[in-house]
Amino acid sequence: MNTFGRLFRFTGFGESHGPAIGGVVDGMPAGVKISVDAIQHQLDRRRPGQSAITTSRAESDRVEILSGIFDGVTTGTPIGFIIRNTDHRSADYSEVEHTFRPSHADYTYTAKYGIRDYRGGGRSSARETATRVVAGAMAMQALASMGISITAFTSAVGPITLPLSPDEINRDAIESNPVRCPDPETARRMEQLILDVKKEGDTIGGVVSCVINGLPAGLGEPVFGRLGAMLASAMMSINAAKGFDYGMGFDGASRRGSEMIDEFFIGSAGDLTTRSNHSGGIQGGISNGQPVTFRVAFKPVATLLRDVATVDDQGRTVTLRARGRHDPCVVPRAVPVVEAMAAMTILDAVLLNRCSRL
Amino acid sequence: MNTFGRLFRFTGFGESHGPAIGGVVDGMPAGVKISVDAIQHQLDRRRPGQSAITTSRAESDRVEILSGIFDGVTTGTPIGFIIRNTDHRSADYSEVEHTFRPSHADYTYTAKYGIRDYRGGGRSSARETATRVVAGAMAMQALASMGISITAFTSAVGPITLPLSPDEINRDAIESNPVRCPDPETARRMEQLILDVKKEGDTIGGVVSCVINGLPAGLGEPVFGRLGAMLASAMMSINAAKGFDYGMGFDGASRRGSEMIDEFFIGSAGDLTTRSNHSGGIQGGISNGQPVTFRVAFKPVATLLRDVATVDDQGRTVTLRARGRHDPCVVPRAVPVVEAMAAMTILDAVLLNRCSRL
Amino acid sequence: MNTFGRLFRFTGFGESHGPAIGGVVDGMPAGVKISVDAIQHQLDRRRPGQSAITTSRAESDRVEILSGIFDGVTTGTPIGFIIRNTDHRSADYSEVEHTFRPSHADYTYTAKYGIRDYRGGGRSSARETATRVVAGAMAMQALASMGISITAFTSAVGPITLPLSPDEINRDAIESNPVRCPDPETARRMEQLILDVKKEGDTIGGVVSCVINGLPAGLGEPVFGRLGAMLASAMMSINAAKGFDYGMGFDGASRRGSEMIDEFFIGSAGDLTTRSNHSGGIQGGISNGQPVTFRVAFKPVATLLRDVATVDDQGRTVTLRARGRHDPCVVPRAVPVVEAMAAMTILDAVLLNRCSRL
Amino acid sequence: MNTFGRLFRFTGFGESHGPAIGGVVDGMPAGVKISVDAIQHQLDRRRPGQSAITTSRAESDRVEILSGIFDGVTTGTPIGFIIRNTDHRSADYSEVEHTFRPSHADYTYTAKYGIRDYRGGGRSSARETATRVVAGAMAMQALASMGISITAFTSAVGPITLPLSPDEINRDAIESNPVRCPDPETARRMEQLILDVKKEGDTIGGVVSCVINGLPAGLGEPVFGRLGAMLASAMMSINAAKGFDYGMGFDGASRRGSEMIDEFFIGSAGDLTTRSNHSGGIQGGISNGQPVTFRVAFKPVATLLRDVATVDDQGRTVTLRARGRHDPCVVPRAVPVVEAMAAMTILDAVLLNRCSRL
Repeated sequence: MNTFGRLFRFTGFGESHGPAIGGVVDGMPAGVKISVDAIQHQLDRRRPGQSAITTSRAESDRVEILSGIFDGVTTGTPIGFIIRNTDHRSADYSEVEHTFRPSHADYTYTAKYGIRDYRGGGRSSARETATRVVAGAMAMQALASMGISITAFTSAVGPITLPLSPDEINRDAIESNPVRCPDPETARRMEQLILDVKKEGDTIGGVVSCVINGLPAGLGEPVFGRLGAMLASAMMSINAAKGFDYGMGFDGASRRGSEMIDEFFIGSAGDLTTRSNHSGGIQGGISNGQPVTFRVAFKPVATLLRDVATVDDQGRTVTLRARGRHDPCVVPRAVPVVEAMAAMTILDAVLLNRCSRL
Repeated sequence: MNTFGRLFRFTGFGESHGPAIGGVVDGMPAGVKISVDAIQHQLDRRRPGQSAITTSRAESDRVEILSGIFDGVTTGTPIGFIIRNTDHRSADYSEVEHTFRPSHADYTYTAKYGIRDYRGGGRSSARETATRVVAGAMAMQALASMGISITAFTSAVGPITLPLSPDEINRDAIESNPVRCPDPETARRMEQLILDVKKEGDTIGGVVSCVINGLPAGLGEPVFGRLGAMLASAMMSINAAKGFDYGMGFDGASRRGSEMIDEFFIGSAGDLTTRSNHSGGIQGGISNGQPVTFRVAFKPVATLLRDVATVDDQGRTVTLRARGRHDPCVVPRAVPVVEAMAAMTILDAVLLNRCSRL
Repeated sequence: MNTFGRLFRFTGFGESHGPAIGGVVDGMPAGVKISVDAIQHQLDRRRPGQSAITTSRAESDRVEILSGIFDGVTTGTPIGFIIRNTDHRSADYSEVEHTFRPSHADYTYTAKYGIRDYRGGGRSSARETATRVVAGAMAMQALASMGISITAFTSAVGPITLPLSPDEINRDAIESNPVRCPDPETARRMEQLILDVKKEGDTIGGVVSCVINGLPAGLGEPVFGRLGAMLASAMMSINAAKGFDYGMGFDGASRRGSEMIDEFFIGSAGDLTTRSNHSGGIQGGISNGQPVTFRVAFKPVATLLRDVATVDDQGRTVTLRARGRHDPCVVPRAVPVVEAMAAMTILDAVLLNRCSRL
Repeated sequence: MNTFGRLFRFTGFGESHGPAIGGVVDGMPAGVKISVDAIQHQLDRRRPGQSAITTSRAESDRVEILSGIFDGVTTGTPIGFIIRNTDHRSADYSEVEHTFRPSHADYTYTAKYGIRDYRGGGRSSARETATRVVAGAMAMQALASMGISITAFTSAVGPITLPLSPDEINRDAIESNPVRCPDPETARRMEQLILDVKKEGDTIGGVVSCVINGLPAGLGEPVFGRLGAMLASAMMSINAAKGFDYGMGFDGASRRGSEMIDEFFIGSAGDLTTRSNHSGGIQGGISNGQPVTFRVAFKPVATLLRDVATVDDQGRTVTLRARGRHDPCVVPRAVPVVEAMAAMTILDAVLLNRCSRL
């Protein structure tokens, strides 16, 4: 299933080491002005080789748009695009042709399909997320025209966590450091931890948080289309994502109702608002007009630059040492991917909500 | 969106205080023997009024199957069913007709639809989950014939957490206490906490964990149909669910790759297996044949038996005191709902996987 | 696949001789006033036993609505309903348990599922279309509030064809005779033919035509969601339907372009209109604001009241004489079914079109 | 909606005069050997400029496959591909920027989206069908390995109709003439008619028929997934298609049941078969193992090489004379498109049918 969404739909394709990756955005409303520069900006944030803490694989990641945009404006027809793969050293991967790297997708793809493109992980490579960033960047431009903004950032790297709450986030601060953590001091410690881990040939997990501002009340649908379920599905489809929660999430499970209620009151502008936002902007599965806040947990990637024991497709025990180029921590580069998936989800919810009343 | 699933699809309907709730199971393969008793057993586990720690609302929750089963066996045609609502004291709810209960769906439904059935929460009531339990119990029976079993249990109530790991769970122990926690001593403490909270007119959150055994490798699909994303969507569609993770989940985000790798080896039966299961049975979005383990975080329900300040639909501040009958902690009754959603998800994944190879 | 539609979705269930048939309407916008009488009126038009030319099976076909409507108005939540089966004489069907009636679904259901509910055709019975009529009647009420009306009628019975064009149809004339043909003289001849055919234990085919008035331009989507494709799928899902065309349809295939062009001009109200409507109101798959006109061809039903040779599930040749009660011509009762499917299709297209522009 | 299918899914994109057209095939089972030559062969059959009776637009239509195929075999991951547009003389179209060509999609696209790519019809151009041919040719290769073959041919051009029945069709005879009519004498008359019409600056409609052989019994699903409904939706999504029927179709509507019954008998190989095939291989919406036969009616294209009166987007009356290069009759080039859509539909049905039994 390589299509995401119900009305705003993205279909992606492409392997890490094939000729190109790409996708089709279908259901984009007509009349959205699209800046290719803004798309490229998000792609550059996801691109490998940005800094000392990311993989040295060097993809230029230039998007070529093939349809659906006329004189810079969407026409309502599908937007096809491709990104050529340029730096694929397939030789790096020949030794994993018959070997299952532990905690990778090598075995499960083989079990499912009986065949796999083993070069660079093939379809299971996170390279595929570049196409999501393109589609998400277009969705973001449509949302921006409605006053909706999406801001993701690194809130944990290993045991180091961000001490700020969602309403204290400064968007500029996020981009001021390679970790994409909005608190400079915490960012420095995170960066050092990643460098230490990298030196040891190890990797480390982390958490990306996200705040969506400007949402109207009414997005999301009972019962299976709850906004939280839509976001969960979106986020858990990202490579290495292992957990999702929104509002108080897992922390709220240990609390009492009396601590967690978000009291309503009428704000100075005469609008209904809440004194707190433990609900993370979603009540009964539907947005209530407050900021939507959520977190995504990422595991440490499984590619270690040290010997690991595993088995091959003949059932023989073998020792493997990774040779590819990999990120010691995926979290900084996952930030724009989380934003992209959030943007697609929210635009879909906005469109679906147009049909809720006669 | 009241339909769940792609090939095995469940469509539910019904409000808390309407004549009936019900649903349609479509895509159930022909040839599955269905025990109505087994369905009723799961319904009884979810039913209100089971014990001192659940709501006193007394629904008999008898399912009536209307189609799709002939001589006790599924025919491949859709299975329609209803459950009549019997104990609906609508008078309890008249005062919330124009008032938005805090952290409930009253406001968001009104914002979305301009109208709501305010009796007992209408469609936003967790009563709707009884229909999922029916559909899930049918899916479970199909899965059982393939050797797949699903076991959910209470792993946290407020700050009290279960000290057992997923492979130490005894199914009988779960049902030995009203909390549905498989460790008797922990269960006792959880039960006491719920009773204390109830006495104070308060509520408390918790966590349901789940283990799926007997899964073949190969379930789940790249990219957006990852098994983790499917389960996340399923679980986050349950009322009061605020978080989902699988395998090491959020805990794994603070770890290093070298701690988290699940080494492959060839087991005594000649089958490929792993020495640990930090991945929770899913790698690259596809099951690897190990048990699938996941957690769902539930917030404390927002209905307090004490005065709360809120606003009405005219923007006036009002004081509200809940009169309905509610659970001080939803987690024990959420256990069969989690099982039901897991069963539907897994059966769908099993069917989808039949098409992965020529 | 028992669900129809993308945003306005109907899911049906039920066998001819089970306890009940029914369905769920999901995606109905909130705020539509629903008249149960108007639903019942359409059900009565489809009901067996209306006249001498329809089956004598006597179902009262009373719809019971179970959810989704509050104080007579839709709430945006799913509308569940059932119709109890009352006159099911299963004994009539015992002899077909092991026999495949020719040109019926007995063999194909068995080939597909390995099991079938043989009583009255089970799921393959046209009885199922009663649930579509309920859902369609609700859709029609939503459309009526937008000024859109749907009128189907009998345009052919066997070789007897209606001499009127779609813009000459009078809605009252349709209901003035049991055949539902708007030309009284043609209706009389059709009725006589059906009675003659019935006397011979034979059956006869026919054509239902439909006109949709009041449609805005812009409904339907490139490429696979063309309005003509949506209507075709809807109509060809009706039992015994074997053909669909719109506008000039098959007749247009033998014409020249110069005969078929619908010239644009600016009407007296300043609106763009066309001098002719060979296109049947759809150009490039999208409605152009002119009336949408289409036809559905129905085969003669295969149940003859005479001996037919066939085989049983052991491969033995057997002689079969139908004992059930059947229509000599399905077309008069198919008229409200065609209207129902058209209404659901158009409402879905109206909702989808709300998302075509920013 | 630019995606077709449920399990085997094709998503297309691209405008007539943009940089490229292309698509993504998702849900193709792993393990299918793909011949790019066989794809190109079908593309060449659809290609403009093949003969004196087709448009002189000269597209080389070379497909570039970007993913999903490894060492010539499908891997189960999505297959992305593009076809570059080469011969787009946009200048030909400048005068229709503000003018609505009659019976074209110019007005309806503008009404729907408020904007359109007017060059060569943009997305509404039949150029888009080249991408369907690519996807269909892949589906055909999967079906061929199951013994299923699909053969479409021209059965009518204007009033000239093919005198052969579906079981008299010789595949080689189809390709022996530019009209793709399997009867040489009829083909000659059709060709002459097209040349005559072309000379007059006019166009002519026609009918494509199709036979599918080798289908197992059991394809198609009750109720809305009837095989006839699936095929109808597929065919009516093709540009200029205005009608669809299968088996005896519209002709059968004038017949009696006693003429139309397909008697079962046990064939010499011990298999259940039918003495006639009026049903066109589908009973109760499900294939019965006999050849599936259907027809698609195509209108004459609306582009005349003579003056036509129309209006522009300011409501002014204007006279238009087409300058683009167009087919006098689309039917010969529609033959491979019908085959492609049939192949996708049937492969989807084959996959869906894998889930009908436990």
